[in-house]
Amino acid sequence: MNILATRLTRTLRLRHPIVSAPMAFAGGGALAAAVSRAGGLGLIGGGYGDPAWLEQQFAAAAGERVGVGFITWSLRKSPSLLTDVLKHRPAAVMLSFGDPRPFVDEIRAAGAALVCQCQDMAHVMDAVDVGADIVVAQGAEAGGHGALRGTLGFVPEVADHLAQHAPATLLLAAGGIGDGRGLAAALMLGADGVLVGTRLWASREALAKEGHHRAILETDGDGTLRTRIPDIARQIPWPRGFTARIRRNAFTDRWHGREEALEAAVATEGPRYRQAFEAGDPEQAGVWFGEAAGLVHAIEPAAVIVERMAAEAAARLRFHGGASLEPSSDGDRR
Amino acid sequence: MNILATRLTRTLRLRHPIVSAPMAFAGGGALAAAVSRAGGLGLIGGGYGDPAWLEQQFAAAAGERVGVGFITWSLRKSPSLLTDVLKHRPAAVMLSFGDPRPFVDEIRAAGAALVCQCQDMAHVMDAVDVGADIVVAQGAEAGGHGALRGTLGFVPEVADHLAQHAPATLLLAAGGIGDGRGLAAALMLGADGVLVGTRLWASREALAKEGHHRAILETDGDGTLRTRIPDIARQIPWPRGFTARIRRNAFTDRWHGREEALEAAVATEGPRYRQAFEAGDPEQAGVWFGEAAGLVHAIEPAAVIVERMAAEAAARLRFHGGASLEPSSDGDRR
Ligand SMILES: Cc1cc2nc3c(=O)[nH]c(=O)nc-3n(C[C@H](O)[C@H](O)[C@H](O)COP(=O)(O)O)c2cc1C
Ligand SMILES: Cc1cc2nc3c(=O)[nH]c(=O)nc-3n(C[C@H](O)[C@H](O)[C@H](O)COP(=O)(O)O)c2cc1C
Repeated sequence: MNILATRLTRTLRLRHPIVSAPMAFAGGGALAAAVSRAGGLGLIGGGYGDPAWLEQQFAAAAGERVGVGFITWSLRKSPSLLTDVLKHRPAAVMLSFGDPRPFVDEIRAAGAALVCQCQDMAHVMDAVDVGADIVVAQGAEAGGHGALRGTLGFVPEVADHLAQHAPATLLLAAGGIGDGRGLAAALMLGADGVLVGTRLWASREALAKEGHHRAILETDGDGTLRTRIPDIARQIPWPRGFTARIRRNAFTDRWHGREEALEAAVATEGPRYRQAFEAGDPEQAGVWFGEAAGLVHAIEPAAVIVERMAAEAAARLRFHGGASLEPSSDGDRR
Repeated sequence: MNILATRLTRTLRLRHPIVSAPMAFAGGGALAAAVSRAGGLGLIGGGYGDPAWLEQQFAAAAGERVGVGFITWSLRKSPSLLTDVLKHRPAAVMLSFGDPRPFVDEIRAAGAALVCQCQDMAHVMDAVDVGADIVVAQGAEAGGHGALRGTLGFVPEVADHLAQHAPATLLLAAGGIGDGRGLAAALMLGADGVLVGTRLWASREALAKEGHHRAILETDGDGTLRTRIPDIARQIPWPRGFTARIRRNAFTDRWHGREEALEAAVATEGPRYRQAFEAGDPEQAGVWFGEAAGLVHAIEPAAVIVERMAAEAAARLRFHGGASLEPSSDGDRR
C-alpha cells in the first residue's frame, strides 16, 4: 500500500512522508484531518494563541489523528494553551521561532513527538540539545515567517549535523516544496520527509480567503518577498531575524522599505490592514504564501495534493529523475 | 564508464553532468581544464574583462576542451573580448546578469553552446526568446552575484516553463550544490545537470587566496550574506537587483546596512579593500563563497570533487535516498 517508506513513515506510522505545516489562521482542523486521512500527518496551526479557535479546530478534526504547531515566542505569553491542547493527545507538537526549552518536558510527558522547526544551524543545535524527535530545516523560500538559509544547501548540512550528534532524530525539509519533485529532492538531500505549507494552503480545506486563493493562481514564484511590514501593521512583536514571506502587491509596494513610516502610521494603517485581510483583498494586506506559488495551478482537495505528491516522487525516484544509471568502471554498485 | 547519463552528458559529450561556474578571478584555466579532464565541463570566468588575463587562462587550459562565462552588462563595455575568446573555440559561452541579445549571433556563429544564467522567470523568458541551448536556474544561496529565488522551488518552475516553451533547452541548477546529494536533488527537480561554484572554488586549482581558503573551512552555511558592499568598495557599477553573496566578516559587520556611508568613504575604503583582498585577509575584504560552505570540509583537487559528487549522486539515486519503494495499491509502476 505504502509507495514511499522512510524513517518518518515508519516512526509515525504514515502512508506518505508528508506533514502539513501548522499555518496560523489557515491550517485548521479540516485541513489537518484531510492530510492525515490521506496518509500524511496534519498539523493544526496554533498561531498567536486564541484558545477558543484552537478548541474549534480540534473539534473540526473530528477525532482524526493530528498534531499541532506553536509560534514559540508567542506561546510563552500564554503557556496554558499547550496544557489545553495536550488534552487532545496530538501525535506531534511543533515549536518554531524561539527557545523550545520551557515546553519540552510537558510535550514529552504527554507522549507527543517533539518537532522543532529550525532556520539556521544555531537553532539546530538547540533542537539537538533538547532532544527533538524531529527537526524541520526551513529554507527562506517558505511562505510565512522564516529566515535566510536556502532549503537546498541547508537540508544536507543539517543532515550531516544530525548524523554526527543525534542520529535517531528525523529530518524534514520545508520551504519551496510544491510537488513530487520537491519531495524526491528532499529525500535525496537526506531528509526523511517534508513539511508543506504553501501547496496545502492552496487547498479546499485551508482556511484561506477566496480572494487570496485566486491571487496565488495568478502569481509565479517571483511574486513574493520577505518583509516585516505585515507584522508592523498588525502590531505583532516578532523578534528580529524573522521576516514574513508574502505576495508582492500594492501593500508591499507601498510600505516595504518604508518600515518606519508604517510604524508611524499604524493607527490608521493597522485597522485598514485588518479590514482588507478579512475581506480577502489581494492587494491591500498580506497574502501569505511562498515561492512554491510558482508550482500551484489549482485549488484542490488536500488529499489530491498529498497523494499526487507522493506518487510523483515515487515515480521520479524509480525513474532516477531522467538520469540513466550505467555501470561505472570502478564497479561502484549496490 | 558513464555512471550518470543525462541529456546534458549526451549533448555536450561529458562523463558527468557537472559544469564549473565561470567565477570571476577564481575560475581560471587550470580549474576549468581540471573539471573537463575529470569528465565535467569547466568554464573560465571572464569576470570584468581583462583581455591579457583571459589569454593567460586559455593558455593555462592547455588545449583542454573548456568554455567561458561573461558578466553580460560588463561585456557590453568591451564586446571585442567575446570575439577574442571565440578564437579559442570554447565549447560553451555562458552569459549572466544582463540582456544576452547583443551577443547571441556571434556565439552561435562560432558553434559554441549558448548558456544563459537566470535569476528569475523574466530572465528565463529572455533566455527562451534568444534560443539558449542551456538555461541555468541560479538560486539565492549561490556564492557571488545573484538574486532572490531559492534553488529548490525555482528549478522545477523553470523546468515546467521550458517543457512548455522550449523543450529542447537543457536546464542546470545552481546555488547551494556542494556534493552528490545536491546533484541528485537537482536531477529530481527536473534539471539535466548542475553548475557548481563554491564547492569548486574550494579546490586546489581555483585561483583563491590561501587565507580565503582557510576561511571557508571554518565557516558553516549560516556564515554568508547577500550585500552590495563589495561592489561599492570596488566601485563596480552593478545593476540594482543583483547582490553578492560573501562571507560574514569584519568588513560586512562594519558596512552592511551602511551603504551610503561606505560610498562616502570610498576614497580611503576602496584601496583598503583591494589591499586586504590581495593579501588574502579573511576579515577586511569580501571573501567570495555561498551557503554551500557548510558542505565544504577540505580543499581538494577539482577532479576528486567532481568524481565524488557524481559517484555519490549515482549511489543515492540507486538507493532512492533512503526511501524504500514498495508497490502501490493502484498499480502505479514503470
Ligand atoms: C500561510 C502560512 C502560514 C504560516 N504560519 C506558520 C505558523 O503559524 N507557525 C509556523 O511555525 N510556521 C508557519 N508557516 C511556515 C510553515 O511552517 C512552513 O515552514 C512553510 O510553509 C514551508 O514552506 P512552503 O510554504 O514553501 O511549503 C506558515 C506558512 C504559510 C504559507
Ligand atoms: C567566487 C565566485 C565568483 C563568481 N563569479 C561569477 C562570475 O563572474 N560570473 C557569473 O556568472 N557567476 C559568478 N558566480 C556565480 C556562479 O556562476 C554560480 O551561479 C554559483 O557559484 C553557484 O552557486 P554555488 O556557489 O552555491 O555553487 C561566482 C561564484 C563564486 C562562488
